[in-house]
Amino acid sequence: MALIVKKFGGTSVADAECMRRVARRIGEAQAAGDSVVVVVSAMGKTTDQLINLAKDVNPQPSDREMDMLMSTGEQISSAILTMALHALGHEAVSLTGGQAGIHTDHVHTKAKIQRIEPENIHAHVREGRIVIVAGFQGLTPEMDVATLGRGGSDTTAVALAAVLQADRCQIYTDVDGVFTADPRVVKKAVKLDEISYDEMLELASLGARVLQSRAVEFAKKYDVELEVLSSFTGAPGTVLRSEVANMEDIVVRGVAVDKNQAKLTIRAVSDRPGAAAAIFRELSAANINVDMIVQNVSAEGHTDVSFTVPADDLPKSKRVVEGIMEEVGATTVAVDDNIAKVSIVGVGMRGHTGVAARMFEALAAEDINIDMIATSEIKISVSIRRDQADRAMDVLHGAFELELSAS
Amino acid sequence: MALIVKKFGGTSVADAECMRRVARRIGEAQAAGDSVVVVVSAMGKTTDQLINLAKDVNPQPSDREMDMLMSTGEQISSAILTMALHALGHEAVSLTGGQAGIHTDHVHTKAKIQRIEPENIHAHVREGRIVIVAGFQGLTPEMDVATLGRGGSDTTAVALAAVLQADRCQIYTDVDGVFTADPRVVKKAVKLDEISYDEMLELASLGARVLQSRAVEFAKKYDVELEVLSSFTGAPGTVLRSEVANMEDIVVRGVAVDKNQAKLTIRAVSDRPGAAAAIFRELSAANINVDMIVQNVSAEGHTDVSFTVPADDLPKSKRVVEGIMEEVGATTVAVDDNIAKVSIVGVGMRGHTGVAARMFEALAAEDINIDMIATSEIKISVSIRRDQADRAMDVLHGAFELELSAS
Repeated sequence: MALIVKKFGGTSVADAECMRRVARRIGEAQAAGDSVVVVVSAMGKTTDQLINLAKDVNPQPSDREMDMLMSTGEQISSAILTMALHALGHEAVSLTGGQAGIHTDHVHTKAKIQRIEPENIHAHVREGRIVIVAGFQGLTPEMDVATLGRGGSDTTAVALAAVLQADRCQIYTDVDGVFTADPRVVKKAVKLDEISYDEMLELASLGARVLQSRAVEFAKKYDVELEVLSSFTGAPGTVLRSEVANMEDIVVRGVAVDKNQAKLTIRAVSDRPGAAAAIFRELSAANINVDMIVQNVSAEGHTDVSFTVPADDLPKSKRVVEGIMEEVGATTVAVDDNIAKVSIVGVGMRGHTGVAARMFEALAAEDINIDMIATSEIKISVSIRRDQADRAMDVLHGAFELELSAS
Repeated sequence: MALIVKKFGGTSVADAECMRRVARRIGEAQAAGDSVVVVVSAMGKTTDQLINLAKDVNPQPSDREMDMLMSTGEQISSAILTMALHALGHEAVSLTGGQAGIHTDHVHTKAKIQRIEPENIHAHVREGRIVIVAGFQGLTPEMDVATLGRGGSDTTAVALAAVLQADRCQIYTDVDGVFTADPRVVKKAVKLDEISYDEMLELASLGARVLQSRAVEFAKKYDVELEVLSSFTGAPGTVLRSEVANMEDIVVRGVAVDKNQAKLTIRAVSDRPGAAAAIFRELSAANINVDMIVQNVSAEGHTDVSFTVPADDLPKSKRVVEGIMEEVGATTVAVDDNIAKVSIVGVGMRGHTGVAARMFEALAAEDINIDMIATSEIKISVSIRRDQADRAMDVLHGAFELELSAS
């Protein structure tokens, strides 16, 4: 008998009809002989309603009280899903994060799980009950409610799977799994049967928003077998593991596009130690998440530094940079909000040469001009004009024959 | 410095505007130098919304899961009210029933408070914080969430006031206090400055629904000074105490009407020991709350038994009685759903004679015919035709000069 942890997100539990569908899905797994522990997010619009309620009385509500408020969303979901399981004749019980033994640090609204005491869950599972845990939450050492921040329910599921030594952690979502490229753009995109944690991490941070990076990192750290699948079809999804079959043979696992970027170029920065550090220290202090950074030193003791930031942060970034230009001896700052980042990701790149060349040639053949280039061990990213992003993804998908990836 | 427990009900915290008003009211008390602990109910329609959500997935949801669900209503209120206090610059903190140290028995949806561990509340109060407790809830010995059932937030407030040895417990509501009669019917009705617990218990159970009987009983048991007042005006309300000034001098404190009654008469019951017991045992087993009971023995070894029940329970009551008629040797059962109960209540009755006569004469003078009569130490109730109930209340209010009651 296997122990499975299943997580259902907001769109999977949006209303009563969705709850009934999810309850049937869970019931099937139990009928097949598995023990099931479920982690559930807040229902559809609950989160937004609660946020609006808070803003109505206080434009800057305290983090502790926001957690007290927001955690009710998952508590409601867990009770409703449990009732739906009862209606189908299943034994089930709901638990808040605290009742499930989830203990966090003090950082309200983005708490980290410190430890899990799974005795209560184990006791219910032994009694044959399906356990429905309110995701996204735990208790601080002072027994205050804390929420885990973005992707917290995914993290709850993976952490529970690790502590319970579950055989698999299934993340149900509104897509069928992880694809070789965005299937809405690339017609030939195919669903991957499996992918490594590292590849998924690169794809997730690039905008393939199927799983939060944090949950994937957690799964990697504790070697939890993670499956992403659809709550609507019930068909097999994509399995994440540390090692996947033929890993080295497959050079490129997928292509991702991020259109939510903007570029800043600081011209004629003094070519002396500490100049770049000063710039990025200021940006970091302003909470701006810098992505690609490119620098080329010129002959005259000056250099141009270019970097990308989330498009929403462009005005703030420009102000920060303008404030430090004198200090770093720069002359001007130029901005470009008409860019996109296109990346190819694959663990197999490590053992293969010529991957970058093949990528650049494929883009050149389609007259797509490359602006910036950044590479990591298992990823090559380029920035291009935003209106060419979809075509670039399609071209690269074909160039690396990703339509043959599955099976 | 006094310690005050304040309770705000659903209509007082219906929306953001109400929350801000309540926050100002609480802030004024703290500014006056008092320590304040607040108990809050769910916001306006939250409770109904949660019930509908549950019924949508399961027509008969389990009591444990209903408690898990419903308790979020008060948790939301407590967080929102705390945020509203923060917006006014006050130090405040919200606590769930469990965090406030409220422990209950196992009876989900109508749990009873077993004990309160007030250390957490005391610690916050010592730090100068206003403590906002989610009413209506506590934790069972298994650390499951349990709700206290009807009037649970009033009971929470009174129980906390008792344990915290508060100087006063103030129940804020949408009326100005306890009146000598329903002010919507009796134009000359006046607000009472004070009333004894016993008088309030008789008035509450008679339909003067300002306070739940359970909370008044609790206040009486632990001698908590209880004030009922308006959350809208902030004017002084009605104070409940065990002893009130001039208690013996005031014969009648108030007049109450209950129009939600129906009468059953069982004819020709055998006049033998156990016959009446058998009837009321069956009604009790069917969870029917019998109010007035009148029996007169006839000469022929038979008797007629009449009693009143809540109007909604009339069909069920009739079925129960019909099922036992043969056993008690009765011939027929007659029903009358066109009745109302009118009562006068006052501790002073004990020491005064002629109160009943004065009541009956006043009604007779207005051609209001009395059907049943029931009396207790501090109350006289009569049943009359329902369409005469309002006029009866007005007549009795005048006959006992209740318009002179206040001041």
